[in-house]
Amino acid sequence: MQFDPDLKARLLFQFNEILPAECILTAEEDLRPYECDGLTAYRRVPLAVVLPVTTEQVQQVVQTCARMNIPVVARGAGTGLSGGALPEENGIILGLSRLNKILEVDTDNLIARVQPGVRNLAISQAVDKHGLFYAPDPSSQIACSIGGNVAENSGGVHCLKYGLTVHNIQQIRLVTIDGELVTIGTETLDNPGYDLLALLTGSEGMLGIVVEVTVKLTVKPQTVQVLMADFPEVVAAGEAVAAIISSGIIPAGLEMMDNPAIRAAEAFAKAGYPVDAAAILLCELDGTETEVAEQAASVSAILQRYGASNIHTATTASERAKLWAGRKSAFPAVGRISPDYYCMDGTIPRKHLAHVLQKINDFSEQYGLRVANVFHAGDGNLHPLILYDANRPGELEKAEQFGADILALCVKVGGSITGEHGVGHEKIDSMCVQFTEPALEMFHAIKRAFDPAELLNPGKAVPTLHRCAELGAMHVHRGQLSHPELPRF
Amino acid sequence: MQFDPDLKARLLFQFNEILPAECILTAEEDLRPYECDGLTAYRRVPLAVVLPVTTEQVQQVVQTCARMNIPVVARGAGTGLSGGALPEENGIILGLSRLNKILEVDTDNLIARVQPGVRNLAISQAVDKHGLFYAPDPSSQIACSIGGNVAENSGGVHCLKYGLTVHNIQQIRLVTIDGELVTIGTETLDNPGYDLLALLTGSEGMLGIVVEVTVKLTVKPQTVQVLMADFPEVVAAGEAVAAIISSGIIPAGLEMMDNPAIRAAEAFAKAGYPVDAAAILLCELDGTETEVAEQAASVSAILQRYGASNIHTATTASERAKLWAGRKSAFPAVGRISPDYYCMDGTIPRKHLAHVLQKINDFSEQYGLRVANVFHAGDGNLHPLILYDANRPGELEKAEQFGADILALCVKVGGSITGEHGVGHEKIDSMCVQFTEPALEMFHAIKRAFDPAELLNPGKAVPTLHRCAELGAMHVHRGQLSHPELPRF
Repeated sequence: MQFDPDLKARLLFQFNEILPAECILTAEEDLRPYECDGLTAYRRVPLAVVLPVTTEQVQQVVQTCARMNIPVVARGAGTGLSGGALPEENGIILGLSRLNKILEVDTDNLIARVQPGVRNLAISQAVDKHGLFYAPDPSSQIACSIGGNVAENSGGVHCLKYGLTVHNIQQIRLVTIDGELVTIGTETLDNPGYDLLALLTGSEGMLGIVVEVTVKLTVKPQTVQVLMADFPEVVAAGEAVAAIISSGIIPAGLEMMDNPAIRAAEAFAKAGYPVDAAAILLCELDGTETEVAEQAASVSAILQRYGASNIHTATTASERAKLWAGRKSAFPAVGRISPDYYCMDGTIPRKHLAHVLQKINDFSEQYGLRVANVFHAGDGNLHPLILYDANRPGELEKAEQFGADILALCVKVGGSITGEHGVGHEKIDSMCVQFTEPALEMFHAIKRAFDPAELLNPGKAVPTLHRCAELGAMHVHRGQLSHPELPRF
Repeated sequence: MQFDPDLKARLLFQFNEILPAECILTAEEDLRPYECDGLTAYRRVPLAVVLPVTTEQVQQVVQTCARMNIPVVARGAGTGLSGGALPEENGIILGLSRLNKILEVDTDNLIARVQPGVRNLAISQAVDKHGLFYAPDPSSQIACSIGGNVAENSGGVHCLKYGLTVHNIQQIRLVTIDGELVTIGTETLDNPGYDLLALLTGSEGMLGIVVEVTVKLTVKPQTVQVLMADFPEVVAAGEAVAAIISSGIIPAGLEMMDNPAIRAAEAFAKAGYPVDAAAILLCELDGTETEVAEQAASVSAILQRYGASNIHTATTASERAKLWAGRKSAFPAVGRISPDYYCMDGTIPRKHLAHVLQKINDFSEQYGLRVANVFHAGDGNLHPLILYDANRPGELEKAEQFGADILALCVKVGGSITGEHGVGHEKIDSMCVQFTEPALEMFHAIKRAFDPAELLNPGKAVPTLHRCAELGAMHVHRGQLSHPELPRF
């Protein structure tokens, strides 16, 4: 579809009234870097990219787009993995990377007020000298920005103990589709009225544009210790995870990798992983020295009871870093042992971990595709990496169907189709599996309440009922499942 | 206003089709107990009270009311303190107390699935044998029900460490105004789509009727210790609170009382409180034995540094119970030293505690009314009790204005007009102080999305813009503040 050149000219004229020329990108080569986010499989070139440097500019840009009926896709650092910042061809990208100032650090009250373009890790770096840190730590924390974290309700290794983004922010300032600036939340624990702060966190840029975030800061623990345990059976490792949590210990992180993931990571990162183990658990404990020592003893006892064949404890910073380096490089490491891989992100109740692992193995045999499993095990967040070769005819489709089967399985056991990557463009069809029609109706009603013309990140995260009905109908007519339909339970 | 007797007859005819006769109350003497909740100053007799025993009956009752345009006010145990369950004269009370079964306890996954009429404390009692408890503990926990806790997002002494209701539930089943049954949330940490679970928690019965709640269970700590410190100055106690939190320790509870509250409580409960202290802090620590011993040492050092003149440690269960008995009886105790009192509930950022206490003292002198202060100090939740005598002309009005001034002060320093009691009927005008017009517009848009005809608990929690404008306008015209207007900042 060709966009009306007159309308585009008028839009750019308006933008020129609001922004200096260097904040407006329209040349093909300038737009290309914005055609996708971390989900590179889908690409679209937007009409224009605007990069405001003040809140007022954001308000004026949004007002202009609302008036002219132009879709607005907000973008932070572009590290998202579900295509949440995929542009619309007839819309603009509103890039927030230049709103990148830390406005205030309040050590008395343990909060920091920052602009949305501030990198996640930059917050922790800025408050490190006060013995504080910002707890949510997505793998992309060196690059991802806090505005994107709010949009996706990002987690990370430490969210088991310290919570998701929604648990670590106190206030946001939001630009509505009308261009109004609204403060949501206060600096206190509870707030009257509906919980708009939680509603907006994780709303994937569909309800408003976040232009300021007040984050909670956490006091750094005195001591950190990492235990690595290797298991001769995957199921036993899964049971050990449930037992640790049931014992009342909340580790700072509790990660699991299966043998294919271990081998790939070890070959890549030389972390000292046992390459013959069926699974390893990495358990990080933090707190005071006595607290950590005590928890380490309890966790070790549990690990042994569930059959861990070896438990290694890393107490120095460099030993810990080495153990974590393997885990953090698992994705690129798998990229070296397979031409392509498809990273899934689903969550399940912890008690079903062993069962779900067994089913993923069954799927693997059924589809004839290898899978490497990496988990945030403590909170039941799975990242199965499905290995395939896109050059072999039919393998991509098989991998996608394998992935959809895993997500459907997650829903079936009471979990969800995404743990931390969001729905975005990628998983919109799986939302039809996750939610019933009345729940989807609620989502649409909320969207209409904030953005009746559906200009904010249109077509993302929440499928139309029509789309779900079509997927369901196709499923029934053909009598068997094929991409992109998902089984219903 | 007389309700159309024909319409009432038709409504009751419909209810008789849905419910057995003993589940429908219409006689004056049967309706009286439902004319108010814990906020007894406001009373209205509803058209009828229905007490369903199944989810299907709730659905059918709501469908009937929606079809006949009859307001529906849901009610749990009726212990609310802001008039959230105050009836409409032309509407019904939908009492959920007979939906009172614990449906499932899942110790592997640390959750329990319960009906809304289950009492808060009954959950902890039911799982006690497994070494578990349900953490949020409002003072009314012996009587209040979990459905009401969800509606108000209830807290309690332990919410500093363990979170509010919203942090301790994983799933709810909701009956919408259309009578549809929708499951919100999953058994896992994060969920795709907008965060409806958080949106509905604390929504005061205005968006739907909760008919089932899946709560998180917490492992009981090995050891509990309570420290009591007395201070010669209130401000120093406030500073000690901020210092404890900034040190990285999160006590299980951190409560403060000032001298009038101490004297009243001691006279009533004989808790062993120092009646000459300007303030006391009660600090509960829990965890393993070594963890608690270590934290107790750190907390004691901080208390001394900020001038605590005496620190008493209660280690046995009976000593702890005695110290808490004084705190828990503070409200009735104050009721013995004053003919009437007005209990406020506001929150402030902890750093402003000392300043706000000073200002409350100033207000006290200005209005010539005594005040006793009881705080959930750790999370900045104030409960000033304003002492007055309703038989003295003008004292009630002075007390109400004093209270409104305190709430406005809370908002001014970045806090909020309610910590845990909700807005309900009582504080609806203070919402005009807390929120700007665009934020109130958002609340109304959300209300319309769930309940376009405004039949669910109408007139509560969110004021109309018209009402706020009127309050503001009156304030301007008269040139000075008088009840119920509140100052704007």
